[in-house]
Amino acid sequence: MKHVFHAAQILGSQRIPSSGAGHAAVNPATGETLEPVFHDATFEEIDRALRLAWSAHLAWKKRPLASRSALLDLVARELESVADDLVERGIAETGLPEARLRNELGRTTAQLRLFARHVEDGRLIESRSVAAAPDRVPTPAPALVLAMRPLGPVAVFGAGNFPLAFSVAGGDTASAFAAGCPVIVKAHPHHPGLSEIAGEAVARAVHESGLPEGVFGLIHGASPNVARDLVQHPLLAAVAFTGSTAAGLAIRDLAERRPTPIPVFAEMGSQNPVFILPARLRARGAETARELAAAITLGVGQFCTRPSLVVVQQGQACDRFVAELIQALDAQGGGVMLNPTCRDRFLAATAALNGAKGVQRLLEPSAEPRTCAVGPALFRSPLEAWASASVRDEEIFGPSSWIVTVEDTEGFLRLAGRLPGQLTAAIHGDEDDLSLMRDLLTLLEEKAGRLVFDGYPTGVEVNEAMMHGGPFPATTDSRFTSVGTLAVRRFLRPVCYQNLPPALRGHAERPNDPVWE
Amino acid sequence: MKHVFHAAQILGSQRIPSSGAGHAAVNPATGETLEPVFHDATFEEIDRALRLAWSAHLAWKKRPLASRSALLDLVARELESVADDLVERGIAETGLPEARLRNELGRTTAQLRLFARHVEDGRLIESRSVAAAPDRVPTPAPALVLAMRPLGPVAVFGAGNFPLAFSVAGGDTASAFAAGCPVIVKAHPHHPGLSEIAGEAVARAVHESGLPEGVFGLIHGASPNVARDLVQHPLLAAVAFTGSTAAGLAIRDLAERRPTPIPVFAEMGSQNPVFILPARLRARGAETARELAAAITLGVGQFCTRPSLVVVQQGQACDRFVAELIQALDAQGGGVMLNPTCRDRFLAATAALNGAKGVQRLLEPSAEPRTCAVGPALFRSPLEAWASASVRDEEIFGPSSWIVTVEDTEGFLRLAGRLPGQLTAAIHGDEDDLSLMRDLLTLLEEKAGRLVFDGYPTGVEVNEAMMHGGPFPATTDSRFTSVGTLAVRRFLRPVCYQNLPPALRGHAERPNDPVWE
Repeated sequence: MKHVFHAAQILGSQRIPSSGAGHAAVNPATGETLEPVFHDATFEEIDRALRLAWSAHLAWKKRPLASRSALLDLVARELESVADDLVERGIAETGLPEARLRNELGRTTAQLRLFARHVEDGRLIESRSVAAAPDRVPTPAPALVLAMRPLGPVAVFGAGNFPLAFSVAGGDTASAFAAGCPVIVKAHPHHPGLSEIAGEAVARAVHESGLPEGVFGLIHGASPNVARDLVQHPLLAAVAFTGSTAAGLAIRDLAERRPTPIPVFAEMGSQNPVFILPARLRARGAETARELAAAITLGVGQFCTRPSLVVVQQGQACDRFVAELIQALDAQGGGVMLNPTCRDRFLAATAALNGAKGVQRLLEPSAEPRTCAVGPALFRSPLEAWASASVRDEEIFGPSSWIVTVEDTEGFLRLAGRLPGQLTAAIHGDEDDLSLMRDLLTLLEEKAGRLVFDGYPTGVEVNEAMMHGGPFPATTDSRFTSVGTLAVRRFLRPVCYQNLPPALRGHAERPNDPVWE
Repeated sequence: MKHVFHAAQILGSQRIPSSGAGHAAVNPATGETLEPVFHDATFEEIDRALRLAWSAHLAWKKRPLASRSALLDLVARELESVADDLVERGIAETGLPEARLRNELGRTTAQLRLFARHVEDGRLIESRSVAAAPDRVPTPAPALVLAMRPLGPVAVFGAGNFPLAFSVAGGDTASAFAAGCPVIVKAHPHHPGLSEIAGEAVARAVHESGLPEGVFGLIHGASPNVARDLVQHPLLAAVAFTGSTAAGLAIRDLAERRPTPIPVFAEMGSQNPVFILPARLRARGAETARELAAAITLGVGQFCTRPSLVVVQQGQACDRFVAELIQALDAQGGGVMLNPTCRDRFLAATAALNGAKGVQRLLEPSAEPRTCAVGPALFRSPLEAWASASVRDEEIFGPSSWIVTVEDTEGFLRLAGRLPGQLTAAIHGDEDDLSLMRDLLTLLEEKAGRLVFDGYPTGVEVNEAMMHGGPFPATTDSRFTSVGTLAVRRFLRPVCYQNLPPALRGHAERPNDPVWE
């Protein structure tokens, strides 16, 4: 490892060795504590980060769009220059295998460059104008220009499960930069070292870009006080969060209780139901079970899009499907979870589901006492037991799924109608299932941000047609996405300029709009 | 008047004569109570309205975009067919003059037709697709279609001051219909009769369009319980509100406290500061004072964009400007306010401002005891008195303004930096003011949704470049507008369809996207 840790807050060009409480990462594969100790940011450090960010915002917004794409490209290059360090520390802090981390790094840099290209060609920064009509009666019409302007400093709370693509330089940061917003990342306390390596790469990119230093900051914090001080700081303009429901709601509540509330986009996960319709189950039950087992255990079930709920019609085809799924999950096996917190929550949640009335445990998750290795879990119940279970809508983060059996086609619709908001819902059907597919589509598009046909929800493409979001409680606002280029909209607001004098048009280079040139 | 009042809730095709508490409108010009008595909707009636709306939503979303433009056109035509009744009852319930109401009706129908055209040509309903790439390594890429889908039933709380253009069939209803969302209007308790006439016109349009009856409902209510039951109903998907800060925040709080929170776009008004810079004040002080007096008293100051704050540099030019403004306001005179509530609040707010330390009253607002007629008010203070006044950021709804004098150019910037969120801010400057104009633009675009140069903020154009919104507390979300075609975005959410089977593409006619055809 070339990187030498400062274990400090990154506040623009300053590195502040903090006096706050300390925390260290743990290697989930060995249980070993990793050097160094990182410290919670103090209120003064958070205040300093926000003041730098605000001042950077006022300066950056006058710079041309090219400054945003240049920064995004530089961040991608700087990340690549420390790829080996990122992967080495990533393996130690998260237990993710090298191939996955290299792949995720590729996704992260490709994402940054995709946003850069879409900013450059003006697609993301809509603007529109209406010419003056001085002769209109009874009153002349003014000249109007509408431009999408950056909201201001954005706080990013990265995900534990994507330490690169949804973290320091991940999709939230990329979309905030594409919007022209400075970013302050709250490093995930389970991968602070990886966050520092990525954070230093972003800070170098900001420096090379010639943009003000306050365009990026990174603070550490294991205590909720750090999140509180950050979210409630008066100079913060928006929050992007990926993580648990409890943490997401706490952050939303903090933002709503500010004297000046700010938007929070929190992606809080979901069950991602997979509906396997009767004809398809008969025709392809065994193959579907094997594919599903792979989707459930992919990345040790640590994706927000893992299918935690499988809906099938009871009967012989169902029983064969279930037997095949048990066997396939057993064959797939488990793996090392990201950290002790995830492992403990996974074991507690599967234990709670096992205690639910009418729910049968088909696979008991194995666990090792010293490391974070776990095996897959599987449950089964009829629709009624699902409907009345108190733990029904709680996300189980890890390699677990719950097969809910329905008696007839009406049962599929009843379950769909009772679902809370979801990131995704999947429908597997054959020609003979078409009528039911239509009815399910009508219901499920009210419930989910993405509808997957004949496939599995894991694997979130990063492009302009992706929607990674969905109705509450999957996210806090179904009108936005956190993946794909449309994610930029979270951090833009329209501003209308009426009769802007020609002399002021040149005062700042503005988005690619002829009216501004 | 041809219209015969039912004084009933409009729930689809049903007219329910309610048992709830009664309220009647008052003619603000005479003090006379107007027949008939309208009744608060009961919980059962609200529940019925929402069930009809939800069922209409599930059906309407499968219909082609043309069903939306057809409805918008029909609403415009039906409103025109009852123009005389609308105007006659409007005069009686609001005190607004006939010319203003006829003009507002024209704006309302033009607005509906503008949305219809923009829906028709697909501009408002963005969709995008990415083709499958089956040969991509390591994993094939799926086909994705992203479509902007209607959120579901929208509650509209119309404004008292625009009984047509921001009411039953106003901009919120037009944008919800353009998004394909059913609407339930809570009629303004000060113009319930006008609301009924307009509501019946919309209901007829829904019937003629062949859409389900639940696409539109209108309920009455003077009690906060009606708003509570409506906003907290589980089938409601969003709220649009125009009105006071107190009512807007109460509705936002209700929506946030739901088990499933929903978005609220509340437009709550602002001070709309006008900065008149030194060179301009010297060159055009007297003309500017006369124009400003007209803007302050236009519509008896009952526009959310009335300029309630005027910022000028102290000195001789300022004193001449103030003298001219007093004279012009006196000459303009006042008028009849919309209703006794508005009048009482106006008189209380101007009295409170008169009591603020360091604030000088230049014009005392006159009032008649029996009617709602009032005269204009004017105040003056130095920057320091403004900065420390407890009533500083409270909207005064009515013909009143507050001249704040600053000592130097720095004073303009200090005031701008302390402003809360605004719908608009205006800058009047000459060539010699250019440097200050640039600095003010940088600060004010953080504070306001629309920046007006060398003009007055009253007069909100309805087109695709308008932004009628702004940072909190002007609205609850600076990322959306309530006027102009972009207002549709409040009620749309992206849904991504992954590998949609060809057999399902035709199940519903979808937005103008080749992928759906």
